[in-house]
Formats: sequence, C-alpha cells, structure tokens
Amino acid sequence: MTRNTTIGLAAMEPGGSLEPISYELGSPGNNEIIIDVEYCGICHSDLSMVDNDWGITQYPLVPGHEVIGKVSSAGEDVRHLNIGDSVGLGWHCGYCNECSCCKSGDQNLCGTAQPTIVDHHGGFADKVKADANSVVVIPKGIELATAGPLMCAGITVFNPMIQFGVKSTDRVAVIGIGGLGHLAIKFLRAWGCDVTAFTSSEDKKAEAISFGASQTFDSRDSASVEQAANSFDYLISTVNVKLDWNQYVHTLKPKGTMVFVGATLDSLDLGVMPLILGQRTIAGSTVGSPAVMDQMLQFARRHNITPVVEQFPFSAANTAISHVRNGRPKYRVVLAKD
Amino acid sequence: MTRNTTIGLAAMEPGGSLEPISYELGSPGNNEIIIDVEYCGICHSDLSMVDNDWGITQYPLVPGHEVIGKVSSAGEDVRHLNIGDSVGLGWHCGYCNECSCCKSGDQNLCGTAQPTIVDHHGGFADKVKADANSVVVIPKGIELATAGPLMCAGITVFNPMIQFGVKSTDRVAVIGIGGLGHLAIKFLRAWGCDVTAFTSSEDKKAEAISFGASQTFDSRDSASVEQAANSFDYLISTVNVKLDWNQYVHTLKPKGTMVFVGATLDSLDLGVMPLILGQRTIAGSTVGSPAVMDQMLQFARRHNITPVVEQFPFSAANTAISHVRNGRPKYRVVLAKD
Repeated sequence: MTRNTTIGLAAMEPGGSLEPISYELGSPGNNEIIIDVEYCGICHSDLSMVDNDWGITQYPLVPGHEVIGKVSSAGEDVRHLNIGDSVGLGWHCGYCNECSCCKSGDQNLCGTAQPTIVDHHGGFADKVKADANSVVVIPKGIELATAGPLMCAGITVFNPMIQFGVKSTDRVAVIGIGGLGHLAIKFLRAWGCDVTAFTSSEDKKAEAISFGASQTFDSRDSASVEQAANSFDYLISTVNVKLDWNQYVHTLKPKGTMVFVGATLDSLDLGVMPLILGQRTIAGSTVGSPAVMDQMLQFARRHNITPVVEQFPFSAANTAISHVRNGRPKYRVVLAKD
Repeated sequence: MTRNTTIGLAAMEPGGSLEPISYELGSPGNNEIIIDVEYCGICHSDLSMVDNDWGITQYPLVPGHEVIGKVSSAGEDVRHLNIGDSVGLGWHCGYCNECSCCKSGDQNLCGTAQPTIVDHHGGFADKVKADANSVVVIPKGIELATAGPLMCAGITVFNPMIQFGVKSTDRVAVIGIGGLGHLAIKFLRAWGCDVTAFTSSEDKKAEAISFGASQTFDSRDSASVEQAANSFDYLISTVNVKLDWNQYVHTLKPKGTMVFVGATLDSLDLGVMPLILGQRTIAGSTVGSPAVMDQMLQFARRHNITPVVEQFPFSAANTAISHVRNGRPKYRVVLAKD
C-alpha cells in the first residue's frame, strides 16, 4: 500500500484548540483520489463539529469542507481526473451511488452520503481523501485562493436557485448577509433578479448594496419587515436564529417560495392560512450535487463572482477559528498553505 | 331594469336555520350573467359562513358555492356564453381582472376576488348572479346532478396536481377521505399515480380502495403513519384538524411536497431540518382558476370521474345541512331543485 501520511489540525475534545496530528490515508481506493490541500474555507458547521453541537463528533476531529487543492493520487478506476488537476471538495466526500437520489443526480440528498468531516478527516490538513465523483474540477479562470467558500457557502445558496426555478424576472430577498448571504446577493444579481437584503447589521447594508442588492431592510425590526409585505417571489433565509417567520411569509407574493438554507433548531410555528390563500411554499435545501456545483462554477466564472474572504495561514488556524467565532468576518475566512 | 326577483334560503343569525327570503338581483351588468340554479353542493365552508366562524358573515346569508345551473340572462358584453348553457360556479363569482394574479391566469389568488357567499347571495336560491368569466361551461358528458361538488371540493384537490406538477409516476398520499379526499383519490388514480389514503375511519378504508387507493393507513395512529416513512412524492392534506405534521413530513421522500388544502387554524409547528436535509416542501393551495377548472372538467369527463353524492331537495336544505354537520355524509351532499 502506498503510504500517504498526512498532518492534519485536529480538535481533541469539544471546543478544543486545533493541534497537529499525523495519520495515514493509505492509497486511494479504486474510485478515490487524494487531494493535496492548498486552501480551505472555514464554515460555521466546522465550529459546530469542533464543539460537538450535533452530538455526532468523533475526536480527534479534523475540520474543513471547503477544500481547494490538486489531485496527487488517483485510484485505478478514476478516468475523469488527472494528477495535478485543481479540484474542489465540499460537504460530501462520497455517495452510495445506488439509491434513488444518487441515480437521479441528487447525490446531495443521498441518505448515506459521507460528510467530509463526520467520521472522516477533513481539509485542515496536508492531504484529504475523497471519492472522485464527489469533487469538482475548478475551471480555469476561477481564482483558487478565494474558491474554497464556493464549495459549501456558495453551493448552499446557488442550489435553491436551480432546484426551485428562480427566474431572472423574479424579486428575491436574502435574509442574513454573511458568508452565505453575500454570495446569494452576487449570484442573484448576476441571474438578473431584483435583490433585497435583510440584515440586522447597519454596516452591512451598504455592503449588501455593493454586492448587488437594490434595497435593504432591518431583519429584526418588525416595522421594517412589514414594509416589504407582498413583495417577493423568493426568500432565501441563511440565518440560524429564530425570526418572526409568519411576518416573512407575508413578504412573499402569491405563489412565492421561502427557502431555508440556514439551520434553525426552533420549530417554524407557521400559520397555514397564508400558505393556502396565497399558494405560498416553504422549503429547504442543502448544499448541492456535483452537477449543480459544476453549473455554479461556470456561472461564477462567467460573471466574475468571487467570495469576499479574509485569508489566514494554516499555522494560524486557531486564530482564524476565533475570528469566525467572535469577529463577524467579512465575509468568509480561508486558510492558505503556509 | 329587468327584474330578476329570486327566492333564496338564508340564515338570519349565526347557526340559524335557513328560511326563504326574496331579493332582487336586477339585470346583469355588462359582463355578468344570471344562473337559474338546478343543483348546489354543500361544503363545510357554507357551514362556517352560516355560523360566522370567520367573523365575516353578513346576515341574511344565502350559502351555496357549488352551483350548477343554466344561463338565463347575460350582460351585453358577454360573448362566450349563451342563454341556456349549463355552467358551474364555485367559490369565486368575480375577479378584479387587473392585478398581477388575474393577468397571469391565477384569478383564484386575486386579492380582491369576490367570494360567492361573502357579501353576495349564493346558490341556495332560484337564481344567482356572477361575473361571466368566473363560471365554467359544463362539457357535455358530465352529469349535472353530481357535478356541483367539482366546483369547490373537486377543484380544491385538482389544482395542486397542476400547480405543483404531480407526475403520473409519483406516489401520492391523501390525508382525510371526505368530500375533498375521495375526489383526490379518483383524480390521482386516473392521473396514473400510486395513491395512498390516510383516514381515521375504519369503514372508509375499503371505500378508499374502491376509489383507487392502493393502500390505507390510520391517520391518527402514530405507528401506522410511521410505517409510511420516506414513501411519498406528494401528500395532500384535506383535513381541518391538527395532526402530527412532523411525522407526516417524514413520510415524504427527499424532494417531496406536502400541500395543505384543508384549513387548520393551529400553527404547523414544523421542524426545519427535515425540510433542509431532504429538500422537502410545504405548500398551500386554494380552489383554482377558471382555466384549471376547465382542465379538471375535461379530465373528469375523459376518466368518468364523478363525486359520490347524497341528494336532497332544496326544500329539505335544513335536513341536508344537519346531515353535513353530524352525519359524515358519503361523500358530498347536493341540493336539487324540487
């Protein structure tokens, strides 16, 4: 077996600082590849896993699921990737390839998909292993240093535009302008939509306009949200806090759709009559399939859409994580190879 | 002005028995027609209006919004209807014709549509007035005596099949097998779907199978509903009571859609994670546009789909209403001209 010893940065206990650990990836399986990591974004889900918020973390835990790197080794059945290709790896590093979702091209909904950082060492490492069909080739013209956040934040907001049929003529509002929300504004603006930003941060309002929003509202001010009644074809909520969802439903036009991509643990507590009388829809979406990731990358390249990132070296990973915890980064933190 | 004096059956106070009253419809406006009523179904919404459950009832209240009759008079701008045509009239008897919904063919979502029994005398009468573009011509081959319930119960369950794109290959479950639900089973079976019925009534299970369901579950038995986990592309809920909606969400496959057409006043109290992780959708739908009503009638004729009705003469309207209140009619009550 080829040795693929790698150094990863691991949390050893809930909330713990990351420490270097060494582990052996072995040679890739027939349909697997090894990626030499160059960049890796930091997502809130990485923090949730470090902290064992979801009760599923196995320690040591190597976070990182917005990976950009080069293929350094490939299994014998891998034909569509070559050594040296620049690839991206997101939330999933493998699928069952047999279920109805996988066969239908909805691999992101596969019930037994392998998450990159659950019982698997992620991208805060020299090398990471993944199924070849779970990664996407980064097209030439996409800047590698800022591409990482497209692999999770980007696809999370791009996917509902594909899945729920957002049209260029639509008015779309984005709730929460952070790592996900700022990319949603950029994608939707390039899509041709009229874009509205809901944010509780006064200084993000001007930035939302600079990303392509035509107007902003205070997401936590009832009177402000009320002004937007009956306005939107789509709402995309990226927040993980409870808002007055019934009031947001009323900002949808008849036939409008609200899509949750941010995970709130509180129940939605929704009135059914506004759904019935206005034929409105509430839905959810999670990351996206490799095919939709390809579409996203082509669209991002064509429209020069790049995440706004703050870069830290891998050696400063703990500082970077603290910044994500406390610092409201603008808008996404990326670790780069030292 | 032509006199169009009519006798209607009116509730004079909340919950009151119906009594004959006389009123003047006048001559139809330029775009209006007068219908000589032959049959009228009884819907639960008629009882809600009699009882002033929604706080909007003006007395005297003449119920009836599943009207079948013949055009007896037409305004001078009415060109597509002729005197003597058999027509149906449902929940709406007029639209604004100017809003975005009306212009888009979604007249049923018009914010100022005129309900047939709100500030307007309905179909429990010799004659009823309506905008010509709110009625549909009953195609030859549709039995008039049983067609009334298609105008509200029928279109209410047919509309989501159109709006949310139910496919013939889909597995669809219907919750609540009454006036709406039994028609949903018939439509969905003819559509080509595999149909499941959820009912709390033991004796309705066999009838649901006879309407075209391939299997039934007890809608109020948690263990029974649990057996259906991850089964359906669509759920159509016709009930007006609170069920364990989170459990029903889990009966949806990934990408599945639950449509509420029954009005529950309780909040839905839904977890958001099953929506996100399974890309599931919760939606509502209300009656349907005249164009979709036309589609429904053509489909019903082609597949010999008729509501199962119990017929009473108009003179026994109060008995018929009591039967609806207490008797769990199978499956819809229709009043017929004496």
